[in-house]
Amino acid sequence: MRRAVVLFLSAGLAAGCGGPDVDVAAELAALRAAAVEYHTAASEKDAQRVVSLYDRTAVMVPPNAPLVEGIEGVREYRFGFIETPGVELSFEIVRAEVSASGDMGWTLSVGQIAINRADGPPGRDVVRDFHTWRKQTDGSWKVVADVWNSGLPVDG
Amino acid sequence: MRRAVVLFLSAGLAAGCGGPDVDVAAELAALRAAAVEYHTAASEKDAQRVVSLYDRTAVMVPPNAPLVEGIEGVREYRFGFIETPGVELSFEIVRAEVSASGDMGWTLSVGQIAINRADGPPGRDVVRDFHTWRKQTDGSWKVVADVWNSGLPVDG
Repeated sequence: MRRAVVLFLSAGLAAGCGGPDVDVAAELAALRAAAVEYHTAASEKDAQRVVSLYDRTAVMVPPNAPLVEGIEGVREYRFGFIETPGVELSFEIVRAEVSASGDMGWTLSVGQIAINRADGPPGRDVVRDFHTWRKQTDGSWKVVADVWNSGLPVDG
Repeated sequence: MRRAVVLFLSAGLAAGCGGPDVDVAAELAALRAAAVEYHTAASEKDAQRVVSLYDRTAVMVPPNAPLVEGIEGVREYRFGFIETPGVELSFEIVRAEVSASGDMGWTLSVGQIAINRADGPPGRDVVRDFHTWRKQTDGSWKVVADVWNSGLPVDG
């Protein structure tokens, strides 16, 4: 009988569901830490570290531009916060959730963007970054879907 | 011993994780059906049906406008596809995933928007609708986060 219970547990784990063993609070903390790491890498203009936080199957949805699909597309993507000179970023996570199985989660972050220009007054933008995350087999969290838009009025 | 196994299963379900009993393929089909229902209600400009598909704690992230938080905010929100006269919508789900526990999922849909104007040439837009969904206690799927943007170039 003990073997039957062990097999039952194994089946649950093989299905990708941790059952009652999943510590959702701990997974949520790990997810938030991954989001902070993303924001830190972005603020430091570290493209390689940013790209390393995406899942192999990631999809990006940049405003006013085509979808970007797969990690190769992410590698080739020109991130505005890295490409635009003089950009300073400051992000805050406003909401984060994980599934009961601890394999899927999402974060909504708001970023204040200051654009320091050599030849004019500083610009600004407010970006809302929505990330859906997938837990990897090594336990790390990676972005599987990345959608964003600006919170400023079109004429603002 | 049988009772012990039953208790174990109950603990798993109480934790919100269905364990090996979750039929992820069936949940994915239910999630896609909920997304189709959302698109149908939107195409029919049925605001009440659209609002009924949001979770109580929903957050919306409209481009170039403030965050909308909670079901009361969703109820008061003026959906562009309902408010703008002459709008025709046609959506396609391009990607959908559910967690192993079947309690969280996401859909990425692309909508072709035609704007028929009485006094001028028709307009168009391409909207990418990203929805994160939460399964409700009654088994239905509802939108807990709604982020979108346009796929057309700013000058397009």
